[in-house]
Amino acid sequence: MRRWLALIVFLALVVVAVYAAWSARSVADRLAGVASGRTQVVDLTYALNDRLPAWPGDEHPFEATAKATFEKEGYFSRGYYLLEHYGTHMDAPAHFVQGQATVDQIAPQRLIGSAVVVDIQEKVAADGDYRLTRRDLQAWERQWGRIPDGAIVLARTGWAARWPDVARYRNTDQAGVMHFPGFGVDAAEFLTKERKVSGLGIDTLSVDYGPSKNFEVHRITLAAGLYHLENLASMERLPAKGAYLVAAPIKLEGGSGGAVRVMAILP
Amino acid sequence: MRRWLALIVFLALVVVAVYAAWSARSVADRLAGVASGRTQVVDLTYALNDRLPAWPGDEHPFEATAKATFEKEGYFSRGYYLLEHYGTHMDAPAHFVQGQATVDQIAPQRLIGSAVVVDIQEKVAADGDYRLTRRDLQAWERQWGRIPDGAIVLARTGWAARWPDVARYRNTDQAGVMHFPGFGVDAAEFLTKERKVSGLGIDTLSVDYGPSKNFEVHRITLAAGLYHLENLASMERLPAKGAYLVAAPIKLEGGSGGAVRVMAILP
Repeated sequence: MRRWLALIVFLALVVVAVYAAWSARSVADRLAGVASGRTQVVDLTYALNDRLPAWPGDEHPFEATAKATFEKEGYFSRGYYLLEHYGTHMDAPAHFVQGQATVDQIAPQRLIGSAVVVDIQEKVAADGDYRLTRRDLQAWERQWGRIPDGAIVLARTGWAARWPDVARYRNTDQAGVMHFPGFGVDAAEFLTKERKVSGLGIDTLSVDYGPSKNFEVHRITLAAGLYHLENLASMERLPAKGAYLVAAPIKLEGGSGGAVRVMAILP
Repeated sequence: MRRWLALIVFLALVVVAVYAAWSARSVADRLAGVASGRTQVVDLTYALNDRLPAWPGDEHPFEATAKATFEKEGYFSRGYYLLEHYGTHMDAPAHFVQGQATVDQIAPQRLIGSAVVVDIQEKVAADGDYRLTRRDLQAWERQWGRIPDGAIVLARTGWAARWPDVARYRNTDQAGVMHFPGFGVDAAEFLTKERKVSGLGIDTLSVDYGPSKNFEVHRITLAAGLYHLENLASMERLPAKGAYLVAAPIKLEGGSGGAVRVMAILP
């Protein structure tokens, strides 16, 4: 009897040891596997040129000029001008709230976090002015568990399919009002008060929906020290849960935001 | 006798199981531990302003101008101009080699890799024109093992202590020749031909040493498709081996390089 018990414990331990060793290996692979391609890296950033959909009124948002050429100097180099809020970019808390962190002051620790991808494409298909709600976040949590501390919450609206068509992406009506989806005020309050996330991201021009006049979501989230990622690309390549995001903004001293390179490290 | 043997095997398995479970946990912590601060993230990037040491002749390297202010528009926003090779920046292969990848074309997979930190501070203290040699790389390998595929090889010269003092950082002599350390041609050939690294990084103005006229290292490494990270900060916070680097350049379409945000994820 005791011999059987010992055998069972023995076999159970073998299983635990093998499983633990295997999982140590597979987990270690997340970063170690990048070089071999075993870990996939997805770029959520659009390349910058002068033809991207800019915020209305942002004239002359980008210009690159050659400083040295192969023909003349034997090498290639340019200078470039752009607006802090053009292309795939980050809003720093200082964009809307005086005294809050500028883009260079956001702790690097907060630029890496779990990607929480909330798919609202069906609702957006029915209503182009849809705003992601607290209920959408709670539905995500029922399926995937509590939104982790330090997460970056992404609204996947499907709007990226309209990029880089300026007219379709802005979707301005005859009264001059834009129509595109965003985050709702109740979702912003839930994420700032009841969860500890680092930032929000979206595949539209703004985390506030198109018709917004007062940018309520901006005021709530930036006041709470969160940042925004706007005009994100390729969100369809992310799982709902399990990817890590690196949101690496240009480190502009005193900047209200700036071009950001966003990469996802897949599970 | 068999009972003793069984007991020893049993205890050995307990040790293996506990160790494997512990290491699975500690490895999983690398990215999962960022939010809690258990995993440290080091920012190797200087903040951008108009007072940083620029390459000689690069007049007007940076300018930020306010586009909206709290006083007038109720929010804060700027435009900015900078040179592709100012501040902490990336050289794309296209910087010196026609037809090679521009900065937006470098695969995201190659922007994340093992940080191989080669400390040559003692040699640089004795000779400000020191160039990291193939032998320095081999000495690193004897101590830490083979340079991993996809690594980013960093020369830690100690020159960052002179930043942002333009005169001391450029260290120009009376004949107008700069003096600062770099990588040697033999090291560049070793890394491009005998190892499979993604890029080089250094805490000086250039991966070629100060007196270089023909930028031999640039020509070798960029022709081989590697990129460079120049003017890196805070390298003293990295271990010789074990950190992962994220080198996230601004995604300028057709750019010869550009501002890069470099972060290290410590073990």
